[in-house]
Formats: sequence, structure tokens, C-alpha cells
Amino acid sequence: MSAAAPARVAPVDPAVLRARAYLSRVAEPPAPALAGLVEEVGPVEAAQRVRDGVTEGPGALPPGVAKETAARRGTDRAEADLALLAARGGRLVVPEHPEWPGAALAGLGLVAGPDGAPGLDGPAGRDGAAEPLALWVRGPLRLDDGPTRWAGIVGARAASDYGLWVARDWSAELADRGVTVVSGAALGIDGAAHRGALAVGGPTVAVLACGIDRAYPPKHATLLEHIARHGLVVTEYPPGANPARHRFLVRNRLIAALTAGTLVVEAAARSGAMRTALVAEALGRAVMVVPGPVTSLMSLGCHELARRPAVSVAGRVDHVVEEVSQVGDGLAAPPGTPTRPTDGLDPGALRVREALPLRAARTAARLAHDAGVDPADLTTHLSDLEARGLVVEDGGRWRRRPG
Amino acid sequence: MSAAAPARVAPVDPAVLRARAYLSRVAEPPAPALAGLVEEVGPVEAAQRVRDGVTEGPGALPPGVAKETAARRGTDRAEADLALLAARGGRLVVPEHPEWPGAALAGLGLVAGPDGAPGLDGPAGRDGAAEPLALWVRGPLRLDDGPTRWAGIVGARAASDYGLWVARDWSAELADRGVTVVSGAALGIDGAAHRGALAVGGPTVAVLACGIDRAYPPKHATLLEHIARHGLVVTEYPPGANPARHRFLVRNRLIAALTAGTLVVEAAARSGAMRTALVAEALGRAVMVVPGPVTSLMSLGCHELARRPAVSVAGRVDHVVEEVSQVGDGLAAPPGTPTRPTDGLDPGALRVREALPLRAARTAARLAHDAGVDPADLTTHLSDLEARGLVVEDGGRWRRRPG
Repeated sequence: MSAAAPARVAPVDPAVLRARAYLSRVAEPPAPALAGLVEEVGPVEAAQRVRDGVTEGPGALPPGVAKETAARRGTDRAEADLALLAARGGRLVVPEHPEWPGAALAGLGLVAGPDGAPGLDGPAGRDGAAEPLALWVRGPLRLDDGPTRWAGIVGARAASDYGLWVARDWSAELADRGVTVVSGAALGIDGAAHRGALAVGGPTVAVLACGIDRAYPPKHATLLEHIARHGLVVTEYPPGANPARHRFLVRNRLIAALTAGTLVVEAAARSGAMRTALVAEALGRAVMVVPGPVTSLMSLGCHELARRPAVSVAGRVDHVVEEVSQVGDGLAAPPGTPTRPTDGLDPGALRVREALPLRAARTAARLAHDAGVDPADLTTHLSDLEARGLVVEDGGRWRRRPG
Repeated sequence: MSAAAPARVAPVDPAVLRARAYLSRVAEPPAPALAGLVEEVGPVEAAQRVRDGVTEGPGALPPGVAKETAARRGTDRAEADLALLAARGGRLVVPEHPEWPGAALAGLGLVAGPDGAPGLDGPAGRDGAAEPLALWVRGPLRLDDGPTRWAGIVGARAASDYGLWVARDWSAELADRGVTVVSGAALGIDGAAHRGALAVGGPTVAVLACGIDRAYPPKHATLLEHIARHGLVVTEYPPGANPARHRFLVRNRLIAALTAGTLVVEAAARSGAMRTALVAEALGRAVMVVPGPVTSLMSLGCHELARRPAVSVAGRVDHVVEEVSQVGDGLAAPPGTPTRPTDGLDPGALRVREALPLRAARTAARLAHDAGVDPADLTTHLSDLEARGLVVEDGGRWRRRPG
């Protein structure tokens, strides 16, 4: 859980914030060439070069950066965007800021496919992969509080009642146990996950595929306000950005990166939730699926994922807590196993007990025969059974003790 | 499926059959010491020594054998047992018989724990492990037809409607696809599995924990007759043997050994079905579980098993067929994945399409900005989209093509 409030952190140079706010709008994420330039010359210099748009001579934009920024480099709304963010109580978290979740995001430059997420059919490649240039956030939680004990809970929008129940119930229990539930604020599983955490006063993080000023889906406007008040709303898209389809896939990689593990509650075959799981796997994070009825299309994706060696089945909340905790912390206890009065009995004694009919007595000789145990061992077996109250002697014959 | 009928096989020496019939009653399975003696001196000599019961001097019984056979060595009903078996159209299958499933059973001497099955809490040991001395069988199927394409289907007696549905439906489909369903004829999952196979005229094998003349459970008397007529009823227990509890565990190891893989449909925590799965795992056979709702106690054991690295989740019958087939044969095809008209589009073209609102037209310049793609690439993207019928030009502006 967060300790220091973000306000106490040393402020970032306003020029850096403005530069990153501009860069965050000027290229569609993920923008690997631009990210490379920023890393090389710093955000202020990179922003200046993109604005200047010089393509030849010293200080020229690399061709990849020119391509990524050609359509929007004339649009600089950084001041207005930052003012809008401040008016809503938000902040721009940037790599120059101590709250930047650098360790969590570091893998993103290495694992994604052409659209920022690995494909279902092949190994993840490096093309098109990049960390975000900045993150627009609202809420009291610190972004660098994870990824340990942060769990992504993702799943279908068209979830079943079963899936919605699991998402809500497990998220509430996770929040109760100090795990931060991270999801995408979508209809269905996402919304149920956020609501479950909020219901027990737990923190929750919504990662958006649109600008922080957009309430999407509209039905979740109130939910998003709750999350911004009690947890964190995060996006790499600048204010006003629409939630286009490809942005959901790109956004999903952030859910995977910001968490120690991703739990897929329900997923149809070939769904965004499956993609999130595959990014998490590529990042080396835990991937878990909730099993469901094989008759449910909404569990099909979960069951397919479960066949991957790196994916585990979460039958109980304990398994999720275990996977997102530090090694050795939060280990799942085995489920309560029923005990029987015959537990620990010698196999021979067990056979003697079972050779006794429910309502008749037997001589020792008959018992040895029926059980197939050495008659020489019978006295020991019967003493064991008598000591446990399982058998009783009755005029030289033995019977089961009732009850 | 079976080719040669058992009747055409060369008969086994009647003295061997009588010896093994006697030995099969004289010790409670598994009887590792007796199995060792039989292997050493042959069944006829071993039977003679057990009958004689000499414990000192040449030809004396090893102490382990003396112990295993002390209670019952005076009981020789071999002739009567074989006559009873013949009267019911059955046969005693022994290692000297070509129908003996030697390769399938060979691992049983190595993997079992004290009661013939490995414990849930520790690795399987060698103590108490042994192959059966003989198998009492009835039915037209050949016992050595497996283990390839034989699948064990096991699960709870107190199964849910869901579990019963899966057991019956999948067994029918497995039988249809030439897989022989092997189970234990118990109430619940076992019965549903046998019935599913029989319903489509498929073969099925019931492995009993009692004598072949016992109809247990009584409710399944008719079912057992059907199985004996169309498939195979098998037991290592001599006629008249009662179905005592420990015999179920011992019997379960045969289901695991006779099949290429075991599918657990439903299992409570700490159940016989889980034990069967662990024996199958120890034998190196495939272990699969049917996932179910996490809210169902009857799926708890399945979900716990699914966390073991060697256990796979079967979300579809295809997965079972794949696991019990020869390598490379019967591979499961990926599930039908929905296709979209945007499949295979360049990510830039996809972004252009998504930048188009549902009901308005846009200029090319505006589209490039909104999508964040290089304006120089826009013509290519729009041509691609137009060729797929996804966009249409309309007086110098572009719009989505309806439908």
C-alpha cells in the first residue's frame, strides 16, 4: 500500500513535463523510434527536434521518428493538457519522476509485436515495442507501489453471471488481503473487478485506452470517478484521445506490465484478455486463469490458455495471492482436507476394519481370512482399532463400534 | 478396436490357470512378495509352495510370502472359481496368455505406495507395489487392445449434473472417435462414462474392486451386464470378493495402468479419483482434468490437480483424444477462431479505419492526424481498406462502408 503521498515528491522540471506532454500526443503509442530518440537526447531536446521537423543535416529527425510524428507534430497542446490534468487533480508521471514505475515497465521495450502486443500465433518480437513516454494519472495511489501485490484482473465484456460473480468476489477478497486490483474499466469482468475491490474499501487501478478526461464506457463514468478518488486512473493517451480498438490492445500491455500477475476470469477464444495474458507471459509475469464450465464459451479462452506451460489454474483466491506476492510470502495453504478416524492406520488394520460387516460380529480367525492379513498380526491390528474406538469386542467376537 | 477374438488364442496350460486362480485368492492384492516368488519359480511351483506352507529348509516360503498368504493359504477354490467364470462366459487372463497387457501393467511394480497407490502428500514409493497375479475378465474386447486410445474417465460418486453431463457427453464422443472408455462402474461419473460410450455403440471397460460375479453397486447390475456383452469387465479379485474400501484404491491403479491417460471429470479434495490421477502420473501416463466452476466443491480436486506440472486441463474432447493417441496422431486442432474483415491489415491501416467515426466522413489529412499515421502512407492504407470494402470515398472525403 502507498506510503508517501505523491505531493511530497520533488517536482519535475516543468520544461520536461511540457516536453513529455507534447510527445505523448505527437505519436501514436507505442512509438519505438521516438522513445529511442528521447532516451538518446532527452525529452526537451527530442520535443524541440520533433517540433522543428528538420529531416536533413545536423539535428535531423531519424526517419523512423519523422514517420511516427509526421501527422501530428504541428499539434502542441501541452500547456492546455497539463492545465486540464491539474484541474482534475491529476499529474503527469514521467521517467524523471520518482513515482515512475521504471522496473515494472522496463520489459515493454522487448516483448511486444507490431501492435504493441504479441500475437497469439507466434513468439513475441521486438518490432514496435516501446515503454510509454509519460503516464497521465489521477488518484491517491502511487504508480510505483506495484508490481508486487498488484494483480491484473481481466476478462470478457460479455461475461457470464458466473464470471461476474468470480471477478467481484475474488477482487473483494484480494483487496481485503492487501492486493491491488488492476483492470481496464471495461464493461463486464473489468467493471466487476473494480467494484469488488471498491466494495471493501480496497484500492484499485484502472488503465484506460483513451484520454484521462474521457469517461469510457459512459456507463462507468461514476465508477471511474470512484476509482480516481480511492485508487488510480492511468493512461498513456493524452486528454481527448478516443478509445479506438487498437488502443485496447496497446493499453492491455500496461495492465500486464504494472502487475506481478494477470488473472483471466473469462475469455472467449481470441480475445483482448487472452492478449493481455500473453503479454504478461512474455514479460515473465504470472498468468492465471479461472476455470469454468467447459460448456461455457466464455471460459474457452481460459481453458486454452491453461494448456500453456507458463499458465496456472487458479481455483481459489489463495492461488492469486501466492502468485503476486514476493517469493515465500503469501503461500497458498492446501485446501481444508476432510479427516477420517481411520487416517494414519496401518494398511493391515484398515483392511481388518473393512472386513467387519456393518451389523455382524466376526471371530478373529474369520477376520484374518477375510482381510487377508497374517493372523499373527491380528492382535496388534485389533488393539489399534480398539484404541481409536473403531471396533469393540463382544464375547470373543469383534464388531464395528457404532457411530 | 479389437481384431482377434480371445477364443482364437492358444489356450494356457490348465495347471497354470489353476495355480494363478488359487494365488489370486490366497493373498490380498497387491502382494509384492508373492508376485516376486511367482516370477522366480513360476506360478505352479509358487502355488505348491504356498499350499505346503513350509517355512524352513529347502523350498521354504520367504517370510514376506508367508505373511501375505498366512490367513488364506488353506482356501483353494481354483476349480470352482474357474468353472464359475466359464459359466459366465469369462476367462482368466494371465501373464502366460498372449492377451496379457504386460507392457501396460509393467510399471505397477515400481510406483505404488503402501496401499498400492501413491499418497497425496509424498512421492510414490516402491513399498507394497505389484502387478496383479491374474485378471478375471468377461467380454468381447481384448485386454491388450490398449493402452493406446484407452482413456480412463474417473470422478466423484456424488457428481453434479454438470459432471454427469460432461462424463456422458465426452465419453460418447470419445467412443465415436475410437477411444475406449475405461472406468470403475461406480455411481456418478463412472456410470455416466460407461453409459455415454455404450449409447453410441462404443466399447467400454469396467474395472471392478470386487469379484466378477458381484454386481456392485447393485444399481449398476444391468449396466455391468451390458458392459460384459459389448466391452470388458475386469478385476484382479477372485469370485465372491467384497468391494471393501481399500480395494477401490488398489483397483484404481489398474485403471491408470490400462490406459494411455486418465481424465478426472469431477473430484472432491482427497478423493479416489485424485489418487487414480496420481498413479497415472507416477506411471508416466497423461493426466487430464475437466475444469468446472470454482464455486463447485466437486471441481475442487480437479483444480488442485491442474496445478501439478504434469497435469493438463482438458477444455474439449479433442484434448483427450490427443493425449491418449500415439504421438502425432489425433492432434487437437485449435478451436474455431472468429475471423474479422480487418484480419491481416497493416497496423497503420487498422488505425486509419478506427479513426473513421461510425457515421461521418473525414478528409485524408484529418484521418492521418487522428490515426497518427504518416500522411505519406495514407494513400496506401486507404487503398487497402477500399479493396477490402471497409471504406468508401465520398466527394474527396472518406467514410466507413456500412454493413
